Amino acid sequence: MENKKPLTLVKIGGNIIDNLVELSDFLSDFSKIEGYKILVHGGGKSATKLAESMGLVPQMIDGRRITDFAMLEVAVLIYAGQINTNIVAQLQANSTNAMGFSGADGNLIQSDKRNHPTINYGFVGDVNKLNTPLLETLLLNNLVPVFCAITHDGSGQLLNTNADTIASELAIALSEVFDVTLNYCFEKPGVLFDAEDDSSVIENMNPELYSKLKAQKAIHSGMIPKLDNCFNSLYKGVQKIKIGHHHMLQDAKSICTNIKL
Amino acid sequence: MENKKPLTLVKIGGNIIDNLVELSDFLSDFSKIEGYKILVHGGGKSATKLAESMGLVPQMIDGRRITDFAMLEVAVLIYAGQINTNIVAQLQANSTNAMGFSGADGNLIQSDKRNHPTINYGFVGDVNKLNTPLLETLLLNNLVPVFCAITHDGSGQLLNTNADTIASELAIALSEVFDVTLNYCFEKPGVLFDAEDDSSVIENMNPELYSKLKAQKAIHSGMIPKLDNCFNSLYKGVQKIKIGHHHMLQDAKSICTNIKL
Repeated sequence: MENKKPLTLVKIGGNIIDNLVELSDFLSDFSKIEGYKILVHGGGKSATKLAESMGLVPQMIDGRRITDFAMLEVAVLIYAGQINTNIVAQLQANSTNAMGFSGADGNLIQSDKRNHPTINYGFVGDVNKLNTPLLETLLLNNLVPVFCAITHDGSGQLLNTNADTIASELAIALSEVFDVTLNYCFEKPGVLFDAEDDSSVIENMNPELYSKLKAQKAIHSGMIPKLDNCFNSLYKGVQKIKIGHHHMLQDAKSICTNIKL
Repeated sequence: MENKKPLTLVKIGGNIIDNLVELSDFLSDFSKIEGYKILVHGGGKSATKLAESMGLVPQMIDGRRITDFAMLEVAVLIYAGQINTNIVAQLQANSTNAMGFSGADGNLIQSDKRNHPTINYGFVGDVNKLNTPLLETLLLNNLVPVFCAITHDGSGQLLNTNADTIASELAIALSEVFDVTLNYCFEKPGVLFDAEDDSSVIENMNPELYSKLKAQKAIHSGMIPKLDNCFNSLYKGVQKIKIGHHHMLQDAKSICTNIKL
């Protein structure tokens, strides 16, 4: 048994962010988590709405947004501006000493612009380097880092980055120093056998079951990169991963999906 | 002679931010400042542009923007999102370990919504409380704080706040621990006798000269709250204040206005 301090890492997705009541409920639950904690938030529909009002047409490939320069500007406005700043202010109102970050802040998350042989993803970054010592310093000063899904390349270029990946990369890096529980929170109670039936939560997911369900097409689209991130994180040292509704953060008996090797 | 460590605090205005070449030149100069330093930035024209494209009509009283809810949202998008995040990424490219903040981050700057007997300023905040110990911790960890002009009221409400005031309040609070030089940088070489003549810089400004020039209407409009902030800061302990072009940051012989008691 190693003697590491517990750290709770929570990623929330767009559907929670788009619902002000749900978001407020989530932030209240998040604030009650004891000990060291970090929040990573996705985007929600505001970026798409603002982009549309500016005449931009968002494009997606494999669940990831194609980010041209105009879309990057919108993502920075909404993710780093609107969502991150408002979440931090709301956490402060919940007596949580939150501090909002893009990856450029303190050089916390540096990424490489994605270089794909056939798809031009545009201004999308894949995480390359984390400033783990600074993150530790911030946590040990009782600050609660809140990350949006914007990183930088170290040469002045901001890059749009998948929020699930940011959460898993942070979890992996910090698992060397902390005993990390990574929670992926969304509007469902967990990974479902039947997407239409909220009572069909798969309570324990392991690589064998995952392969089987993928082959059966029971698991598909956006859930695949999410689960790939999870298993990758576990292989690389993350102690514990859960997927489910944010009620699992405060209610240990709440049903959710536990990802295990 | 007190044995305080030097801290350079720089405020840049909108005209530098709106000019990408000038901004890049400024950030390069700022990066070369040795020792502890903090940047506070104003807004520029992007917020007005975005507001206009959304059909909002910006209003000003005494050089201050009237901030209704829609204008606040635009200010948060542009100041905390676009400008702050891009400045931080560019400073990182200049090997400066910048970290961007609104006042909500780490509860660094808490403000009160302005309560004026006759003018409804809207979502405008007057600085009330600074988290000086946290700011010191960040500085002593060799981070370079970069503040936008958004603060919060501690109850979840973001507030638009005058950037000059933020700079002077930070300078006053930090002057107890550091030997602070506060630099107000803008596109002119200093406070001018004749606004049309850049060679008419007033190299030394004191309260007597200020009163005289105000009476003569040689100093008016936006320069008045700026100079009021300066003298207020000096009375409250700030060690040194300069107003001028950012070249003064690197060239000690560069002409500028020194504000003195």
